[in-house]
Amino acid sequence: MEAAATSKVDVLIIGAGPAGLMLSLWMAKLGVKTRIVDKRTGKIVSGQADGFQCRTLEIFDSFGIGHKVWHEANHMHEVSFWNPDEDGKIRRHHRGPNTQPNLSRFTEAVLHQGRVESILIDTIRASASPKHPLVEIERSVMPTSLHIDESCVDDEDAYPVEVTLRHLTEEEATPTQRLSNLQDGLYRSNLAEDDTERLLANTAGVGREEKVQAKYVVGCDGAHSWVRKTLGEEYQMKGESTDAIWGVLDIIPITDFPDIRSRCMIHSAEFGAMMIIPRENKLVRVYTQLKQVSTGTGRVDRSQITPDVILETARKILSPYTLDYHYIDWWTAYQIGQRVGDRFSKHNRVFLTGDAVHTHSPKAGQGMNVSMGDTYNLGWKLGLVCKKLLQPHVLDTYELERRQIARQLIAFDQKFSKLFSGRPAKDASDEAGSSMSEFQQAFREAQLFITGVGIHYQPSILTSDSDLKGGLQGTETPSQSQVTSLAESAAHCQPGRRFASQIVLSQADARPWELQLHLPSNGRFRVVVFGGDISQATQLATVNKLGGWLQANWMTDEDPSIVDVLLVHSGPRDKIELLQDLHEVFHPFDKKLGWDYGKVFADDHGKAHKHYGVDPDRGAVVAVRPDGYIGLVTGLEAEDGWTRLQAWFGGLLRPSPSSS
Amino acid sequence: MEAAATSKVDVLIIGAGPAGLMLSLWMAKLGVKTRIVDKRTGKIVSGQADGFQCRTLEIFDSFGIGHKVWHEANHMHEVSFWNPDEDGKIRRHHRGPNTQPNLSRFTEAVLHQGRVESILIDTIRASASPKHPLVEIERSVMPTSLHIDESCVDDEDAYPVEVTLRHLTEEEATPTQRLSNLQDGLYRSNLAEDDTERLLANTAGVGREEKVQAKYVVGCDGAHSWVRKTLGEEYQMKGESTDAIWGVLDIIPITDFPDIRSRCMIHSAEFGAMMIIPRENKLVRVYTQLKQVSTGTGRVDRSQITPDVILETARKILSPYTLDYHYIDWWTAYQIGQRVGDRFSKHNRVFLTGDAVHTHSPKAGQGMNVSMGDTYNLGWKLGLVCKKLLQPHVLDTYELERRQIARQLIAFDQKFSKLFSGRPAKDASDEAGSSMSEFQQAFREAQLFITGVGIHYQPSILTSDSDLKGGLQGTETPSQSQVTSLAESAAHCQPGRRFASQIVLSQADARPWELQLHLPSNGRFRVVVFGGDISQATQLATVNKLGGWLQANWMTDEDPSIVDVLLVHSGPRDKIELLQDLHEVFHPFDKKLGWDYGKVFADDHGKAHKHYGVDPDRGAVVAVRPDGYIGLVTGLEAEDGWTRLQAWFGGLLRPSPSSS
Ligand SMILES: Cc1cc2nc3c(=O)[nH]c(=O)nc-3n(C[C@H](O)[C@H](O)[C@H](O)COP(=O)(O)OP(=O)(O)OC[C@H]3O[C@@H](n4cnc5c(N)ncnc54)[C@H](O)[C@@H]3O)c2cc1C
Ligand SMILES: Cc1cc2nc3c(=O)[nH]c(=O)nc-3n(C[C@H](O)[C@H](O)[C@H](O)COP(=O)(O)OP(=O)(O)OC[C@H]3O[C@@H](n4cnc5c(N)ncnc54)[C@H](O)[C@@H]3O)c2cc1C
Repeated sequence: MEAAATSKVDVLIIGAGPAGLMLSLWMAKLGVKTRIVDKRTGKIVSGQADGFQCRTLEIFDSFGIGHKVWHEANHMHEVSFWNPDEDGKIRRHHRGPNTQPNLSRFTEAVLHQGRVESILIDTIRASASPKHPLVEIERSVMPTSLHIDESCVDDEDAYPVEVTLRHLTEEEATPTQRLSNLQDGLYRSNLAEDDTERLLANTAGVGREEKVQAKYVVGCDGAHSWVRKTLGEEYQMKGESTDAIWGVLDIIPITDFPDIRSRCMIHSAEFGAMMIIPRENKLVRVYTQLKQVSTGTGRVDRSQITPDVILETARKILSPYTLDYHYIDWWTAYQIGQRVGDRFSKHNRVFLTGDAVHTHSPKAGQGMNVSMGDTYNLGWKLGLVCKKLLQPHVLDTYELERRQIARQLIAFDQKFSKLFSGRPAKDASDEAGSSMSEFQQAFREAQLFITGVGIHYQPSILTSDSDLKGGLQGTETPSQSQVTSLAESAAHCQPGRRFASQIVLSQADARPWELQLHLPSNGRFRVVVFGGDISQATQLATVNKLGGWLQANWMTDEDPSIVDVLLVHSGPRDKIELLQDLHEVFHPFDKKLGWDYGKVFADDHGKAHKHYGVDPDRGAVVAVRPDGYIGLVTGLEAEDGWTRLQAWFGGLLRPSPSSS
Repeated sequence: MEAAATSKVDVLIIGAGPAGLMLSLWMAKLGVKTRIVDKRTGKIVSGQADGFQCRTLEIFDSFGIGHKVWHEANHMHEVSFWNPDEDGKIRRHHRGPNTQPNLSRFTEAVLHQGRVESILIDTIRASASPKHPLVEIERSVMPTSLHIDESCVDDEDAYPVEVTLRHLTEEEATPTQRLSNLQDGLYRSNLAEDDTERLLANTAGVGREEKVQAKYVVGCDGAHSWVRKTLGEEYQMKGESTDAIWGVLDIIPITDFPDIRSRCMIHSAEFGAMMIIPRENKLVRVYTQLKQVSTGTGRVDRSQITPDVILETARKILSPYTLDYHYIDWWTAYQIGQRVGDRFSKHNRVFLTGDAVHTHSPKAGQGMNVSMGDTYNLGWKLGLVCKKLLQPHVLDTYELERRQIARQLIAFDQKFSKLFSGRPAKDASDEAGSSMSEFQQAFREAQLFITGVGIHYQPSILTSDSDLKGGLQGTETPSQSQVTSLAESAAHCQPGRRFASQIVLSQADARPWELQLHLPSNGRFRVVVFGGDISQATQLATVNKLGGWLQANWMTDEDPSIVDVLLVHSGPRDKIELLQDLHEVFHPFDKKLGWDYGKVFADDHGKAHKHYGVDPDRGAVVAVRPDGYIGLVTGLEAEDGWTRLQAWFGGLLRPSPSSS
């Protein structure tokens, strides 16, 4: 073995699944020196996760790639519930929208994980520029040791985490079943053993090793996370597995079942439950409960699980409808269980994300979404701290915010899985059975959470406190935030929730825009000024005064400034001249590119003001975090607005070298 | 010189500009053996055409790539007219929508030609499959001779056109200015000389030559078309040039002119006219009249034209507003002229398309659109004739249909250019000046034509006659069609016009769709059945009887059949069971892929029926050509509907080997 080379990097990411790729995307966008390694030779080619929630699509859109997924994916508009009728035959009991209308401009959509990973990888590559180093996924590489030098974790210029990386052979990096049978997903299932231990043990003739000193290390290494295990006992996930085993088939079905292109939740009288997920390219995913493969004592006989066994069960559940297929894309099986870790970070230097810190059943289509949600939350914080734009203590909010979401997810999944796996109750007196109406209601109630749109981060240094409370169940005791919002200024913009989209017209060219598209994920904080009717001189003066204050205080020297200012006004568009009437902060000038015409929007008839809960006579200011979540809501005037903004930014941003 | 090798090909395309690429796309989609050659080493990288009309976007969408252009392009929503006021200073006189609302789901959009060519090339490549040979653009190749063997032009198995191709050297294929200065577009302008003659003359040390025998040759070789010249005198274009010289700058402007992000038509009192086209990525295209460079006798001194000259003129026109730039992307100049050929085809074996057969000024953003429109019209006809699915005499309709469009274009351009280049009239009595209100009105009236949505092909074997006439000015004497439409069945579906889009819900999964997206460009004819309220038993029976007749008569043995059937009904969606209630022609079965669930649509509250002018109590049948233009409108019943459909298809399609 050669002596290990040593190099330094700001961020080292372990694992290139959805969580790792989303994090790399942030790093690539922000231009942070990053390495990402994965023990496998290649990415997923088929199967695995496929459900794309509304909020995830919004996030993809904020990176300019939402339309790609949206175009290729199947959109799921409808859900059908099929239950046994009096003679035990399944019958459609209810049909309704799969995504609650008007939550988002997207509905739930379905596209397989491999395609999603490709899109992310291409976007990471495309983010490279002369100023931003290329972030390339290094395959067939895994860590073999991780050590934190605790003496310097508070020194932000230090590289306190040392990781040894081993470059694997092609054989080590290729799981056995992989090449011979691409459709077989069982080797990656939670019923199969992980190979990390075996690989680590294989010290005879190991490949090249190197040492990396990192400022930050992020474990995105999935359910069997080596990073998590390495961090010690107190990082182990807690929770339980149930006996319920489910099989998954991705097929092009040949069936006379009428709702095969809708999402279906089917409970049969005798043969267990089934879920149907219509997918892209005529594919359909079928989840079926496999009652027969459990050996009773909680152990599972894996060798008994084959696509035929899953198909047989599906046929029994669907009977009298027929089910067959010619083409199978992928199949697997898993055991339902819910686990979540207590700790998501060590010294804010090593972090755990995604399946590495929470696992649950896949049927609600949450894992990939929540995993990317974790690193979407972490990425900009890490990036801006590396760039010395953000105060390092903001990193505390990662565990605070995402652990809450993970716990809500686990609680939802426990309830939902139990109701789904249970035998349908024969009638109201049948207490051992699951009530089908309770099941439907649980599904409906969970919608806001499932779509990701309901996420509501608790108060913290990032999220001001608000009078208008109303989080989801399971909210932890809030850590006190330092600033309070003037919540009534924009009553439907609750701090901690994502800034929703409304359609507004570009002042400069009359183009209608989803306002969210003007809050791209580029690491900038945003001050969205709702100006009200600025064709009124006093209102215009107030807005311009605020503009002057923003310019003087928060337009830092970086190019572009860490704070971005948008103006939405409800005046008549043709009465306003962008360059002439408005303060320059609303049309910043660049020596080479001229004025920026893309920051001011007209809100026809004040419709958007109304949706955001802003009184057009008074206006409001909404400060939005780089991840699109609302941080602060306040007024336009010096007293209400400026002081709160000053305090909020003051607690987060680093004093710019030029100011103070 | 080596002896020339000889090979055979179905279609040989000369020139890989927009026209040639659109044609190749059809060929690649239809799987026709095709070669495409271009004398240049590479495609356009910047500049040239940039205007994308609504209809072109719809066409791109029918190939599955509309969203790509739409996402990248700038959308032009507004147009401003600036004229001199009493003191001769320019002033905004009018502002309005640039595209008439509700014409299309798109508005005019702007993206440079190089990007468009890339998207086309990638799509051509992606169309290759085991069944469909790859169509690769062969660069640095030009024809040196073309000969038609007239003795066998009527034998469809013959290859009557022999072309000699020469493989150029890198030096020959690279225009001199190209590598040294990418921004300079003058070498491609109509003020510059073409190098074809020089290249042809250079017989010393020529590269490899080969002979190609083709069934069909298509000249897509632009304004200096060698193919056109080779066809002889009677193919020369006719028309005239004016003195007006215009300069073009693609810059990121630094200006206080308030409407710089709108399309603007500016007439100054003294310094000529100017047009502003806001583009993608902060670019703006500026067209300015260059009064000073014409030497008076109609000759132009090219050496006098520089970006500075164009900028100087633009500054004078825009004064008192300022104009500057740091970044220039491209620039050129051209002389206004309008020419069109009389003949677009020789023996239906050699065709002329695009700039090779009509040229005009670029300001209305028509050239690229009309050029692609030509080959979009020709491509499917040629492809289906090669595949022996369509009767060869249908090829006659190419010249018939596209010459009319070219003539309308020339007429429009003459009028528009004259008004634009003219000095603005001082008042109503100033007859030598152009009237600004007349100019605005001409622009408004031309909208339908400019957008491409107004295209109305005259009656022919492809387009049935209709009672409800109403073509644009300039329609040629119609060649009689053999079938007449029952026009009142779908009053807003006029034969010869494109089948417009409406939103309908997929019966199978409730997804809302633009109906046009279910008429993709794949070479299939479409029978769109408007079923009305099929929850009524009699109406359902009528629809199913028609289904049976279609199945028996027009579902040919090819896979898929050349005729595709769609059903749009206005019954309540949840009262209809797709597989159970409807004839199998509406959900065709495939042994490997199961039933097709994508052919039936519910029309909520009959809104789409109303837009198409269909009475929901009676229904209608609209037969649509593979290019999305309406061929025939008729009723559902045997007498009205079937006989007309029979006659129409009978005149076009070849008897399928299995039937008759
Ligand atoms: C059948 C099925 C259906 C599902 N359906 C959905 C769904 O519809 N929607 C949804 O959102 N989620 C779904 N999921 C869950 C989803 O797949 C996971 O939650 C998601 O992939 C987790 O992302 P991750 O990046 O955290 O982990 P992973 O995707 O597991 O990625 C971890 C990566 O780290 C690498 N790695 C692991 N260990 C090491 C190591 N020691 N060193 C280096 N690299 C390492 C792995 O090779 C892998 O590439 C489904 C899962 C299954 C099995
Ligand atoms: C400044 C400017 C602005 C314009 N703006 C617009 C606009 O906004 N919208 C719009 O729609 N149109 C616009 N146009 C017009 C548009 O560019 C043309 O109409 C369009 O490119 C014509 O397409 P084409 O494929 O017919 O010909 P071309 O684009 O000219 O392509 C011809 C191709 O054939 C090749 N070729 C030529 N001779 C030979 C030969 N002998 N052998 C082999 N290959 C050969 C050439 O290399 C070239 O690649 C503009 C043009 C200019 C100059």
